[in-house]
Amino acid sequence: MSETSARPVIAVDAMGGDHGPETVVPGALANLTTDSPYAIAFYGRKDAVAAVLAEHTATDLPVTVVPCTQDIAMGESPASAIRNRPDSPIVKAMTDQKAGKVQAVISAGSTGAMVAASLIVLGRLPGVDRPAIATVIPTARQDILLLDAGANVQCKPEHLVSFARMGVVFAREMFGRPAPTVGQLNIGGEPGKGNELTTAAYALLAESGLDFHGNVEGNEFMLGPCDVVVADGFTGNNTLKLVEGFARFLAELAGRDDLSDAERAGFRPVLGFLQRKFSYEVAGGAMLLGVDGVSIISHGRSSEAAIANAVRVAWEQIHAELPARIAAAHS
Amino acid sequence: MSETSARPVIAVDAMGGDHGPETVVPGALANLTTDSPYAIAFYGRKDAVAAVLAEHTATDLPVTVVPCTQDIAMGESPASAIRNRPDSPIVKAMTDQKAGKVQAVISAGSTGAMVAASLIVLGRLPGVDRPAIATVIPTARQDILLLDAGANVQCKPEHLVSFARMGVVFAREMFGRPAPTVGQLNIGGEPGKGNELTTAAYALLAESGLDFHGNVEGNEFMLGPCDVVVADGFTGNNTLKLVEGFARFLAELAGRDDLSDAERAGFRPVLGFLQRKFSYEVAGGAMLLGVDGVSIISHGRSSEAAIANAVRVAWEQIHAELPARIAAAHS
Repeated sequence: MSETSARPVIAVDAMGGDHGPETVVPGALANLTTDSPYAIAFYGRKDAVAAVLAEHTATDLPVTVVPCTQDIAMGESPASAIRNRPDSPIVKAMTDQKAGKVQAVISAGSTGAMVAASLIVLGRLPGVDRPAIATVIPTARQDILLLDAGANVQCKPEHLVSFARMGVVFAREMFGRPAPTVGQLNIGGEPGKGNELTTAAYALLAESGLDFHGNVEGNEFMLGPCDVVVADGFTGNNTLKLVEGFARFLAELAGRDDLSDAERAGFRPVLGFLQRKFSYEVAGGAMLLGVDGVSIISHGRSSEAAIANAVRVAWEQIHAELPARIAAAHS
Repeated sequence: MSETSARPVIAVDAMGGDHGPETVVPGALANLTTDSPYAIAFYGRKDAVAAVLAEHTATDLPVTVVPCTQDIAMGESPASAIRNRPDSPIVKAMTDQKAGKVQAVISAGSTGAMVAASLIVLGRLPGVDRPAIATVIPTARQDILLLDAGANVQCKPEHLVSFARMGVVFAREMFGRPAPTVGQLNIGGEPGKGNELTTAAYALLAESGLDFHGNVEGNEFMLGPCDVVVADGFTGNNTLKLVEGFARFLAELAGRDDLSDAERAGFRPVLGFLQRKFSYEVAGGAMLLGVDGVSIISHGRSSEAAIANAVRVAWEQIHAELPARIAAAHS
């Protein structure tokens, strides 16, 4: 293993997710070469990580292991985890990011612990009152960014404007779209439709200076009518889960006994297409935007491909200096 | 046209929906025979209805026409419509239901006007604080009832319990399920997950005496884990629209140029299956539950088949005396 000090380091929680080091380690190493512009630091139980690493690293890849003696249990309260598990992968890696030793943290472990550690250890960017979970949603027309996908279950109208500002920066830097448009997820198209939050947020978004597309209704969401879609964290998380569940729904249908032969035969390639283009693996994970650093929250069921994509996403955010650009959009 | 006084009358807004009488009239007549246990009364412009009716009615079907001289425009505020359009199909039919001349009203016109007319003219059932829009959602496993699908964008916890009670009556009487289970749509499975509304409603549902399944997350919603799913009207409406949008999403995908030949061939039968089993046409429309009568709100895009199903649904609710049973469940 080579010296990694010269390049940015991406911290990877080796213990996170349903499959632990056996999936996370090879996933994170999948695209790593001796010439990669970043290094990987695995945080986790020394023996467990070393055993898997020995199988997967060739010679002088830019990889280090940061041994951790503690774990966060999936059911543990995030606040308790931050306080009582300083030597757990998530807390230790986030502390190291704050100290400048690593430049991003990826975990497929507890979402709550990742959000809490990011907020408490990294802190919020200047001007950002509420960091938000952002997820890339592949739609029929284009990838879009949905936020907040679950960090803030109750929001004020001005939070949705901040989500929109963060989303526009992301869409410009990560999607490469010069003039991203913003929509608000709502139950009607007209400005007056919706609840107190969406009607008030509509007015603020309309005068925000952003390119506001207006309200987006659920039946057009998956067509991808704009680049960024904002919602409160409850609505955004429910929406994300419904979209995720669509593939499960189709997979269940494929096994029903009221299908014709042609229908049965049709489901396999359609499901294959959705898996290839629309699974969470392709997106690589959710991102907490608005904190002073890079924080990637991978799906608990992450495969090696999903972890590999999370590493790519982390590197892109480091390379684009995304946190600084988000701060600038709020100044 | 025969005398209809002996049997229950279903009032149909002949002018409602994107296609007006040319679709509504034949749709409503599709399953009507001289021996049908119900009669149909078309409400609308006399000439417009008579012209279509002349093409479609044979001899002595139990059909009448109630001429209306006014219309409700799609953009008109519901309150204004109720006040200023007493001779519009929706308001006149609802007034006739209140007077006992008809036993149900179906409209594919303005949802807002249907909800307002039902609330103001029919009134709420004893014990029901908030009538709710209920929709049948066909899922992978079974039909389920989602409510509120949009009547109440802001709810209190006790409203969700009332929605659950109404839904259980519906599932027992209309689905024929002896012991319906209730779930709450939420962004986490555990009781403490969600927002203020869902955490408080969880506690009330758990001690309601209903068979409470617990929280249902979006990714399992379309698998049909329980018979009734409750949510506030904003969340329910967003969920309904996302589900409706899946078919549009798949139809868009079917036209993409990054499909393999096998994938392209697969989409057609899959879309056909979804259209056959899962389109809104099969369900026949949304229903406002909790008012003192039968109020069926059909989709604006309703086809003849959708209207035919709405008539079936209206008749089933009349036959089962659904409003009285809902009132009993709140006493």
